[in-house]
Order: sequence, then C-alpha cells, then structure tokens
Amino acid sequence: MLIIGEKLNGAIKSVAEAIRNRDGAFIRDLASRQLDTRADYLDICSGVPEEDADVLCWMIELIQDDHPDVRFSLDSPNLDTILTCIPLCKNPGIINSVSLEGDKTDRIFSVVNREAKGQNDWKIIALLLDETGMPDTVDKRMESFHRIVKKAAEYGVAMDRLYFDPLVFTVATTPDSFLNFISASSRIRSEYPDAHIISGLSNISHGLPSRKTLNHAFLIGAMMNGMDSAIMDPLNRELLGGVYAAEALLGIDEYCIEYLSAYREDLFGVQK
Amino acid sequence: MLIIGEKLNGAIKSVAEAIRNRDGAFIRDLASRQLDTRADYLDICSGVPEEDADVLCWMIELIQDDHPDVRFSLDSPNLDTILTCIPLCKNPGIINSVSLEGDKTDRIFSVVNREAKGQNDWKIIALLLDETGMPDTVDKRMESFHRIVKKAAEYGVAMDRLYFDPLVFTVATTPDSFLNFISASSRIRSEYPDAHIISGLSNISHGLPSRKTLNHAFLIGAMMNGMDSAIMDPLNRELLGGVYAAEALLGIDEYCIEYLSAYREDLFGVQK
Repeated sequence: MLIIGEKLNGAIKSVAEAIRNRDGAFIRDLASRQLDTRADYLDICSGVPEEDADVLCWMIELIQDDHPDVRFSLDSPNLDTILTCIPLCKNPGIINSVSLEGDKTDRIFSVVNREAKGQNDWKIIALLLDETGMPDTVDKRMESFHRIVKKAAEYGVAMDRLYFDPLVFTVATTPDSFLNFISASSRIRSEYPDAHIISGLSNISHGLPSRKTLNHAFLIGAMMNGMDSAIMDPLNRELLGGVYAAEALLGIDEYCIEYLSAYREDLFGVQK
Repeated sequence: MLIIGEKLNGAIKSVAEAIRNRDGAFIRDLASRQLDTRADYLDICSGVPEEDADVLCWMIELIQDDHPDVRFSLDSPNLDTILTCIPLCKNPGIINSVSLEGDKTDRIFSVVNREAKGQNDWKIIALLLDETGMPDTVDKRMESFHRIVKKAAEYGVAMDRLYFDPLVFTVATTPDSFLNFISASSRIRSEYPDAHIISGLSNISHGLPSRKTLNHAFLIGAMMNGMDSAIMDPLNRELLGGVYAAEALLGIDEYCIEYLSAYREDLFGVQK
C-alpha cells in the first residue's frame, strides 16, 4: 500500500494559519510526524489560489532541508504551480492530479513523458473524470479510463506511473457510491491486473457524523477490492492500523511481519 | 447483518466469576446492555463442563424474566445441554454449533426437523468441519458444506435456517486464512446466493497484539465478501460502527438511515 500523507493542506484550519504566518516550524513538524509513520509521499496543497506556487515552493524547500529524501505529492488545480514546483523537487514525486477536463492531461503528460530527463519518473494521479463533469456510472468512469490510458501511451507515460482514482461521492446521497468504486476498480484490474487504484478516503462520508467510522470501513473495503494506494492521514492510528491489518489479511504481509513491526514502533493500537 | 452478542461466555473472567457466584444481577445487566445495542441473539456459554446445563438454564430463566422476547444462541459442546435448554426458551434461537464430527449434526437435525413443532424454527450454526479435523483447504470446507446441505435436506431443515461458518485460523501462522474464508464464502454464495455466512471475529487475531485492529478489518472485509452474520461484541463501539458503516457502503442501508439512527442512539462514534 502506498500512502500519501494528507495533512499539509491549507483546507485544514491550523495549516491555513501556519501558511498565513509562514510558520516554518509548524510545517516542518507536521511533515516530520507524517514521515515518521508511514507516509511514502507528502501531499502539499496551499489552499491560497493567489499565492499557490509561492506557498508550495516555500514548503518544498523547508521540508527538503530536513528530509532530503522526501517525495512530494504536488496538489494544485493550477498547472503552472505544478510546473513551477517540479524542478525544485530533489526526488521524483506524484502529480495530484490530472483529468480529462481542459488540456491538463496533455500538458502534464508532455512534461513528464519518457524523453523528459529528470521528470520521466514522476507519477501521476489520474481522476476518471471527463469534460462533462462528475461521472454517475461505472461505464462513464471506464470511458475516461480508456481515454487516459490511450493518451498516456501516446506520450510514452508507462501504466505503472499512473494512479487511477475512480472517484467517490458521499454515501449519504449516493447509496451505490462504494459499489461503483469497487466495480470500476475491478474492471480496471481485469484489463490491467497491475494498474494502481487510488482514492482519498474522506469523500465517502461527507455530510455524515462519525466520518472516521465510514472512512475506516471504506479503506478496508477498497483495499479488499484492489485499491493499492490512498491519500490519507497517516497520524490517524485507527486508519493506519487498518492498513496494516488489511495487508496481513490479504496475505501481502505474510506472517504479519510488518504488522508486528509497526505495532512495536507504536504506530497503531492503544498508545504506549 | 445478524449479530449474536458474545459477552455471556464463561471464558471471560468476569463472567466466570459471576457464574461461580450465581450473580444474577451481573448476568442480567450484561444481557440488557447487549440487547440495548444491536444484538439479535445472545450467545450463552457456561465454560463449566460439569454444570453446563444448570448454568445455561439459570441464565435463560434470569434473562427471559427481564426480556421475554430474547432469543438465545445456545453455545455448548454438549448436545444434552442443548437438548435440555431448547424447551426452556420462549422464542426460537440458534444452536451454536454443529459439525460433521461425531453424530451431532444428525441428532440436532432430528430434533429441529420440519415435523418438530416448536423447534422447527430454530436456526443452526454449521461449522465446515468434518471428522478428520480442521480444514486446511477451501475444497475441504466445500466438501463439508455439501455434506451438511445434503443432511439438512434429508431432515427437512431449510437452507435459510443454516448459518455456515467457513472457519478462520489466526493470520499469525496461516497467511491465507482470510483469503480461504472469503474464497469459501464466495463459492457457497455462487451455489446458494442466499446462504448465510457467519463467523466469530476473534480467531483471526489469536496470538497477535492489538487484536481489535485485526478483528475490525476482518469484520469489514468479510462483510464485503458475503458474510451476513457474526458472533461479536456489540458493546465494542468501533466494531458496531464498522457494521453500520459497511452496511451503508454496501447499499444495504440506503441513504444511511440506520447508520444515522444508531449514531443518534449513541451506539458508536465518540461517546456523547
């Protein structure tokens, strides 16, 4: 399971305040704490459209100073921000995200294509979303999937660099939201057994109480159905425990080696 | 999801003590608390072989006094105990459990067969276990399944009264334990789409730390793969929340009506 730590996001009040005050200590601490658990990538999102690139560049330099091996998930709706940030990153990261809206996919694929030295090992999160808006059926998601796969092939972007997000709506108003998600995952996997499936965990519970209860069930249920990466809070001990437990159940973590080691490191379970 | 509350079990220290002292108040309280959440049945298990029937009869009368509608899961390795208890129960319950070891299945089926007035609506938990011991493959489980189904037909015990337990071993030593469980579930369901699948939740985590982390993941994962009943602790708020969440995700609880109602009743989530 690949985990993208989601905490450095300007949509979170305390992070927004730290960004406003350029409070480097706060940002560095939040980065370190996520990396100390099991974040393979750190998502960074400014939440400040007018200073988007400035904020992300500031975060990148701060965090790389402490953690030269860090890998970022560049999270911005603004393509220029992403293109500005890529050269600053010491290690290849992941672009969050492309879709078939506008020309974003073409522009991103053209800068990370197989010829683009230093950028041709970036990964890309691809939302199964086209120019007609949010998909309401699995078929619509699969259409977008095929179009993105075709485009990636044209630009020489290998399948293993793509993380497909089938998109999830809140189960409060869309009862078949999870079922559509796993149906799309399973259709993708039946065509490309090694395709990566990713999701944020929290959309499923929008507008409902005790969101972590639903997010947790979604995480386990999606992992049981082929999801191999997630944008999530690695500091949430219940969720992180869920990842280790699901890996043990799925036989990915044979004899619970990783589960036991993470438990000994106090990453989940009752805090020691 | 059908839930059998597991707390009234002499294997639990405090319950053993209450049984030893015939502490009726303790037993009645533990029964009421389980029924106040979402226990469809109350499992009762003495843990005292030499007084097995006495203890269960005592519990049945105590609890029925407070809750005339209660349904019991009679949990005893001793067939005579079960046969002694059945006539005392005001409502049809569930027999926990039969298997192909010895003549237990024949004897139980013959007393709850379709002709047995007052007893022909009891349900039965059937372990997929034969006289050769614990099954190490899915095929072996399926052989037991077919033999039990055939026997049930001979005695006129309808399929919808049977709850099949594919059996789970700890994932600490059996890495494919969960995979075998869901594979058996799926094969049973492909032959009998409405067959009931049941499990205890805690075997999966035997010998491992933070057992509730694994039990929780097992619950969600098994529900995602056809399990529709469980012997579990309905007072564990995380687990019970997991049941409601999984039902919402699976579209069984459309628009989260039950999820919201259980949350308002404070059955899960942060305690109010």
